[in-house]
Amino acid sequence: MSRPRILVINPNSNHEVTQGLEDALKPLDFASGPEVIFQTLADGPFGIESQADIESVAMPLRRLIEGDNSSAAFVIACYSDPGLQVCREGTDRPVFGIAECGVLTALARAETFGVIAIAQRSIPRHMRYLRQMGLTERLAGERPLNMSVAETASGEGTLASHRRPLEDALGIPVIDPTQAAVTMALGTVQFSRH
Amino acid sequence: MSRPRILVINPNSNHEVTQGLEDALKPLDFASGPEVIFQTLADGPFGIESQADIESVAMPLRRLIEGDNSSAAFVIACYSDPGLQVCREGTDRPVFGIAECGVLTALARAETFGVIAIAQRSIPRHMRYLRQMGLTERLAGERPLNMSVAETASGEGTLASHRRPLEDALGIPVIDPTQAAVTMALGTVQFSRH
Amino acid sequence: MSRPRILVINPNSNHEVTQGLEDALKPLDFASGPEVIFQTLADGPFGIESQADIESVAMPLRRLIEGDNSSAAFVIACYSDPGLQVCREGTDRPVFGIAECGVLTALARAETFGVIAIAQRSIPRHMRYLRQMGLTERLAGERPLNMSVAETASGEGTLASHRRPLEDALGIPVIDPTQAAVTMALGTVQFSRH
Amino acid sequence: MSRPRILVINPNSNHEVTQGLEDALKPLDFASGPEVIFQTLADGPFGIESQADIESVAMPLRRLIEGDNSSAAFVIACYSDPGLQVCREGTDRPVFGIAECGVLTALARAETFGVIAIAQRSIPRHMRYLRQMGLTERLAGERPLNMSVAETASGEGTLASHRRPLEDALGIPVIDPTQAAVTMALGTVQFSRH
Amino acid sequence: MSRPRILVINPNSNHEVTQGLEDALKPLDFASGPEVIFQTLADGPFGIESQADIESVAMPLRRLIEGDNSSAAFVIACYSDPGLQVCREGTDRPVFGIAECGVLTALARAETFGVIAIAQRSIPRHMRYLRQMGLTERLAGERPLNMSVAETASGEGTLASHRRPLEDALGIPVIDPTQAAVTMALGTVQFSRH
Amino acid sequence: MSRPRILVINPNSNHEVTQGLEDALKPLDFASGPEVIFQTLADGPFGIESQADIESVAMPLRRLIEGDNSSAAFVIACYSDPGLQVCREGTDRPVFGIAECGVLTALARAETFGVIAIAQRSIPRHMRYLRQMGLTERLAGERPLNMSVAETASGEGTLASHRRPLEDALGIPVIDPTQAAVTMALGTVQFSRH
Repeated sequence: MSRPRILVINPNSNHEVTQGLEDALKPLDFASGPEVIFQTLADGPFGIESQADIESVAMPLRRLIEGDNSSAAFVIACYSDPGLQVCREGTDRPVFGIAECGVLTALARAETFGVIAIAQRSIPRHMRYLRQMGLTERLAGERPLNMSVAETASGEGTLASHRRPLEDALGIPVIDPTQAAVTMALGTVQFSRH
Repeated sequence: MSRPRILVINPNSNHEVTQGLEDALKPLDFASGPEVIFQTLADGPFGIESQADIESVAMPLRRLIEGDNSSAAFVIACYSDPGLQVCREGTDRPVFGIAECGVLTALARAETFGVIAIAQRSIPRHMRYLRQMGLTERLAGERPLNMSVAETASGEGTLASHRRPLEDALGIPVIDPTQAAVTMALGTVQFSRH
Repeated sequence: MSRPRILVINPNSNHEVTQGLEDALKPLDFASGPEVIFQTLADGPFGIESQADIESVAMPLRRLIEGDNSSAAFVIACYSDPGLQVCREGTDRPVFGIAECGVLTALARAETFGVIAIAQRSIPRHMRYLRQMGLTERLAGERPLNMSVAETASGEGTLASHRRPLEDALGIPVIDPTQAAVTMALGTVQFSRH
Repeated sequence: MSRPRILVINPNSNHEVTQGLEDALKPLDFASGPEVIFQTLADGPFGIESQADIESVAMPLRRLIEGDNSSAAFVIACYSDPGLQVCREGTDRPVFGIAECGVLTALARAETFGVIAIAQRSIPRHMRYLRQMGLTERLAGERPLNMSVAETASGEGTLASHRRPLEDALGIPVIDPTQAAVTMALGTVQFSRH
Repeated sequence: MSRPRILVINPNSNHEVTQGLEDALKPLDFASGPEVIFQTLADGPFGIESQADIESVAMPLRRLIEGDNSSAAFVIACYSDPGLQVCREGTDRPVFGIAECGVLTALARAETFGVIAIAQRSIPRHMRYLRQMGLTERLAGERPLNMSVAETASGEGTLASHRRPLEDALGIPVIDPTQAAVTMALGTVQFSRH
Repeated sequence: MSRPRILVINPNSNHEVTQGLEDALKPLDFASGPEVIFQTLADGPFGIESQADIESVAMPLRRLIEGDNSSAAFVIACYSDPGLQVCREGTDRPVFGIAECGVLTALARAETFGVIAIAQRSIPRHMRYLRQMGLTERLAGERPLNMSVAETASGEGTLASHRRPLEDALGIPVIDPTQAAVTMALGTVQFSRH
C-alpha cells in the first residue's frame, strides 16, 4: 500500500521559503507514516505581505486543491491562512491553516500565548483573525520583526530554524506554526486509515 | 540512539481502558519516531466519574511524572484532565491533557464543535473547564451517553473504536481526544530533538 | 461644483439585482447631496452563494475600486462583504460593507438583532463574520429563506421592497443592509466636504 | 407634502452647544429630505458632566418626546445617551443616542476605535455603557480632554468643527457622534416613507 | 455606642412591599450588629414596572440618600437597581443594588444561575443590565411570573416568603436579592467599624 | 436552640494564620447569629503557595467536611479556593471559597476590581480561575506583594488587619476575601433557618 500524502503548499512563489519548510518538516517524515510533500504556488506573489497578496492566492489555492487527487490532507503554509475557508469548501479532505494550528497548539502548552509577526502592518489583520476564531482570550500580545517574508527565509532556512534556540533562550515553548499544522495533519491522516 | 518516550497515563485503574488506549494509539507508533508507552495509574479509581475521583488522582499523577526520568512528554488520558496544572508545575517536560487537546484539535477542523460526555453529571464540570480554557465561543453543545466509564471500555475497545464509523455516519470530523493529544505530543517531542 | 459620487457595487453579475438596489436607494438621492451610482461587477458570478463566489470577486472589486477616480465612497452590496478588507487596503476613500453596516445599524435600533439569510449554508459563514466583527453579543439568531439570490431578486424588486411590509407586520425595525450602508456612506461623504 | 422632521435635542441648557450642533448638522439638511430641527432642553443643566446631570434629564427628555407630535425621529445629542431607554419606551418613533451611533459608525470605518472624552471622570461611565451595548471588543482606548462641556462649546463652535482638521492630521477617520446619529436618523426616516 | 444603620429603601410607594421586606430581613437584625431600617420612597410609583418608573425614582433616591446623615449603608430594594449609579455618585457610604447583589450571591452558590422576573417585559432590560455588569457568562436563563409588583406583594408577604419552599422543592439554592444585598451591607458596615 | 455553626477552615497548617482569621472575623460573631468556628487543616502545608499545595489539600478538605456533622456552612479560607468543587460535591451544605466571594463582593462595590496577590507566581493561576468563574470583564489588574504566606501572617495578624488602613489611604473599598465569604455564609445560614 502506498503512503498517503500530506501536501504542504507554500502560497508564495519563493522557492527558498518552500525549501525552508521542507527542512523544517523532515522530522515528521516517518517511513511508515504519511508522505509529506511540498509545493510552491506557482502564481503566488514572492511574499504574502498584504491583504491583496492574501486574496490573490485564495482561488489559485482552491484550484490547486481541487485538481489534486493524490493528497489525503492539505496544509496552507502562510500565517495569514489565505484561502482556508474556500479550500475547505472545495474538498472533503482536511485542510489545515498554519495560523489556526499554531495558535491552537500554543494553547495546549501554556496559559497564554504571544505571536511574533513578520511586519507591524499584519498585526491588526491577525487580531481580526483571532477574533474570528474566537481565540483572543488567552492572547498575551503580538510583536513584529519588521522584516520582509523574503528576509525571514534567507540565511540558514526558515523561521523554524530559530525555534529551538529561541525556546532554549526564553525557557518557554516556542511553536512553529507549520510544524504544528503538519503534526495535526499527520494525526488526522494516520487515524483516518487505521 | 534510543527512541524518546511519550508516556500515556490512564488515571483510572481499569486495565481494559488502558488496553483500549494502546489499541487506539498504534497508528502513531512509528519505528523512527517516539515510542508511545502506556501506564495504568495503580492507585486510581476504577473509573473517573466524580470530582472526588479527579482530585484523588492529581497528586499521584504528579508523583508518577516526577518519578519518571525516561519520558520526553506525558499525556493524561482522561477527559477531565485531572492534575494537568499540578503535573505541569512539577516538570519542564510537556504534559498534555486530552480534553484540552481534543477541543483544540476539533477547532482546527470545523467552525463549531460538540462534545460527547459519558455522563450527564460531568457536563457542568466540562463547561466550567471550557470557560477556564477560554474556549467556549465555538461550542455547539454537549450531550451525554449516560454510561459508566467501564461500560464505554467494554466490548471491542475504547470509544476510539467508534470514531471512524461515527465520522462516516455523520459526515463530519469526529475527534478522539487521546489521539489528538498523542499527536500533539509526538510533534512536540519530534521537533524538540531535531 | 459637481456632486460627489457614492459608488454602490453589486458584486454579482445579475443586472436585476443591481436594478433592485437602484430602486431601493432612490430615497437617498438628494439633489444637493452625493450622487448614488450603481455598477454591476461584470465578471462576478450570477449570484454569490458560496465561499468560492466570495473569493472570486475580491480582487476584481479591488481593481474596480483602484481604477475608479471619480467616487468619494464605495459600498459593496453583498451580505458576505466580499473583498471588504482588500478594498479598504487599496484606497484611502471609505469602503462600506452592507453586512457590517446592516448589523451596526440594527444595533442602533433595538436591544437584540436577528438576521434573515438567503440560504442555510451561509449561516455558519455569517456567524464566523459576526465573531470577526466582535458583534455576536446581541445576536438573537439567524434564519434562512432557502432561496437562491436570483429568486430573491425576481418579482417586484430586491428584498428591500419587502422591508416596509415586514416592519409593519412584525412591529419591529427591519433593516435593509444596503440602505444602511448607503446611509452611512452619505453621511461620511457629506461631512467630509463641509 | 411637508418634510418629515428629525428633532435633535440638546439635553443641556447651553444654547451655544445647540447652535454648534445646528452648524455641524447643516450638511444633512437636504431640501428634499427630512428637516433637521434643534431644541435645547430648557430644564437641563448647563452641561451634563455627572451621573446626576444624566438622571435629571431622563424624564424631561421623555416628556419632551411624548409631547412632540410632529417629529419622525429623535436624536439625543449628549455622549452619555441620557434617557435613551426611557425615551424609546415612550414612543414608537425611532430614538437615537449619539454615543451608540458614534461607536457603531466608527466600527464601520476601522478595525478598532478610540474615544475622546471631555472629562476623565466620565470614562468609567463610558466603559460601563460600552459593556452594556456589548461593544467593547474592538475598543482601543479612551482619553480625556479634561475640559468642561461649556469650554468645548466655546470658540468657533462645537467639537464637530475639529473633526476634519483632526482627521487630516491623524490620517484616520474621526467620527462626530451627533453627525453619526443624525445620519442614521435621516436614513431611517427617509426609507420609512418611500 | 449606638448601632450603625443600614437603610433599606423600597423605591415604590406600596407599603405592603416595604412590610414584606421588613419581615424578610428580620433574621439579620442582630442586637450587637447594625440596625436595619426600612423606608418607603414616598414619591415612588405603586410598582416599578417600566423604564419610566425606574427613571422617575432615580433622583428622588439620590436626594433621600444625600439628605440622610444617619445611615452607614444603603440598599435599593428593587430588582432594576434604579438610581444605583447616581446614588453612589452622591455619597461615600456604600450603596447596594439588590439585582447586582442577588446575581453575585447566586454566583457564589452554583455553576450557573437563573432569574425569576415578575414580568416578561422586564427581561430585555435585565439582560441589558447583566451585560453592563459583565455577568452574563454563567446565566442559564430568565423566566417571567407575569404578575404585577402589587400581586407579588399580596398574600403572606413578599417573594421572600417563597424562597425556602422553592429551595426545598427544587433542591437548588434560591436567592432572595434583598436578603443578599442586606447581607453584603451588614458585612461591609460591620467590618468598617472594627 | 443551639446556634448553627459556620466552619472556617484554614487549609494550611500555620496556626498563626488561623488565629489571624479568627481575629478578623470577630465582628460577625453575633450572639443571636451563627457561631463562627475556625479549624486548621492539620495535614495542610505550612503555606499554600504552589499548585501542588493546592491539590494536596483538596481531598483532606473533602474528608474534613464529610466528617463534620455539626456545621451549617463551610468557608475554605485560602485565596486559591482549594478543593472548592470537590467539597461542594461531597455535601448539600453550602461551601464558600474566599477568592470567589472576595471577587463577587468587590463587584458589588465598584466598577472594576484589582487583586493583591501574595506572590507573582500565583497570578497566572488566579487569572485562570477568574476565567473559569467568568469574572474577568471588570478586572483592572493584579499585583504581587512577593511575600510568603507565613510573612503575611506574622506581625500583628493576617492581611485583614491592613484592610481598613489601606481603605482609608486609598479612598476606595478594600475587600478582605475571608470577611466577604463569612458574610455570605452568615446570610445563607441565617436565612435558611428563618
